[in-house]
Amino acid sequence: MLSRPAPIPPFLSRNPEIWELVKPYITPRTYAKHDRVIQHGDSAQHLWFVIDGWLKLTRQTPDGKETILHLGTADDIFGEAALVPHASYPYYAEVISNYATLCAISSATIQQLQEHNSLLSAGLMSLLHGHITQARLTFEHMNTMSATQRLGCFLLRLCQATLQDAVTLEIPVEKHILASYLGMKPETLSRSQQQLKALDIRVEGAVIHIANVEALRHFVCNSCSASGEC
Amino acid sequence: MLSRPAPIPPFLSRNPEIWELVKPYITPRTYAKHDRVIQHGDSAQHLWFVIDGWLKLTRQTPDGKETILHLGTADDIFGEAALVPHASYPYYAEVISNYATLCAISSATIQQLQEHNSLLSAGLMSLLHGHITQARLTFEHMNTMSATQRLGCFLLRLCQATLQDAVTLEIPVEKHILASYLGMKPETLSRSQQQLKALDIRVEGAVIHIANVEALRHFVCNSCSASGEC
Repeated sequence: MLSRPAPIPPFLSRNPEIWELVKPYITPRTYAKHDRVIQHGDSAQHLWFVIDGWLKLTRQTPDGKETILHLGTADDIFGEAALVPHASYPYYAEVISNYATLCAISSATIQQLQEHNSLLSAGLMSLLHGHITQARLTFEHMNTMSATQRLGCFLLRLCQATLQDAVTLEIPVEKHILASYLGMKPETLSRSQQQLKALDIRVEGAVIHIANVEALRHFVCNSCSASGEC
Repeated sequence: MLSRPAPIPPFLSRNPEIWELVKPYITPRTYAKHDRVIQHGDSAQHLWFVIDGWLKLTRQTPDGKETILHLGTADDIFGEAALVPHASYPYYAEVISNYATLCAISSATIQQLQEHNSLLSAGLMSLLHGHITQARLTFEHMNTMSATQRLGCFLLRLCQATLQDAVTLEIPVEKHILASYLGMKPETLSRSQQQLKALDIRVEGAVIHIANVEALRHFVCNSCSASGEC
């Protein structure tokens, strides 16, 4: 783990009043691939912010099957169990890119800050509600979308911050992990990547060029109840 | 809609200090089958408690596919968007039993109560966190469980409040709705019901006799990362 100067995590940069509150308590640290930053079942002591890099959030059944609940990257928050008194983490979080930069804030600090600031409570409620909606949308998409649309939706979310027509993304996530998260076999993921060529989307290893974000949105969001408002 | 004397909704009966706070603001009302009590996209003005009856929470894509996110009954809370300032409901809620008794408390009242009581904030955070975990478990089960196990898990949740070995449940939910919620075809649901006979579970219309809850738990929970702690 290495310390380095603190960029502002995106959730906080969009909520400057919350950033002012938590800034004194946050120190970004760099983690390496395969670092497990939280363990399923451990007491939830910290809320985590992803500044850069990629993590997978997973659960495992007693008979050994792993489910990838979420692939987290910049702008993601995890370990939300830390907002609930005496809760434990309901998943593992493991770094899957070569490096990831994360910030953690302790549940005790959050609780103290909340007691003096109802705005923070409202912000955290909003965060939890967003996670419920996101989890339910993921479930819906298994029912309403084709494999290619699910891949398209995943890419689209990574374009959300931009208003540009053309975007280049770097997604250093192994194919079998991305396929498992999207609920498909690796060979189906390869076929889906091929099909996206018709929308001017080219994949070169971990780099993906999207020439027309609006065309991708049209292809994906007509099969989603959020209709692009996600 | 008919008013009638207020039983205590189960979430509140387990949290007597919260019940004392909200009691003056709650009036149970009876709704009829097909009543839509909340509309997807409407401003979230109320948090709802189910006292009895059944509801389905659904979303619909622009191209007309419906996904059942949850089947709610006694002990369920929905409309949690009311806890978030300026949020809208992210689903429809429709009564699917002949009658349902529901309570609603306004978001304005909750906000006022929260300002003077941090215990209520903690209770509501816990409620939201439980909904995230539940939504993610539902997603996991599509990956890790057989159709028969998913039906078994659904029954087991309805037995949770009891410590008895044998339980009789009444589930007045149409077969196509239950099948859709569990992610299977109606004929797969029929086959799953047949397979549960081996665990001494008998289905007679809307009534289901479970002779040995522990055997059902053993059959289901070994394929779930919550391992019965749900």
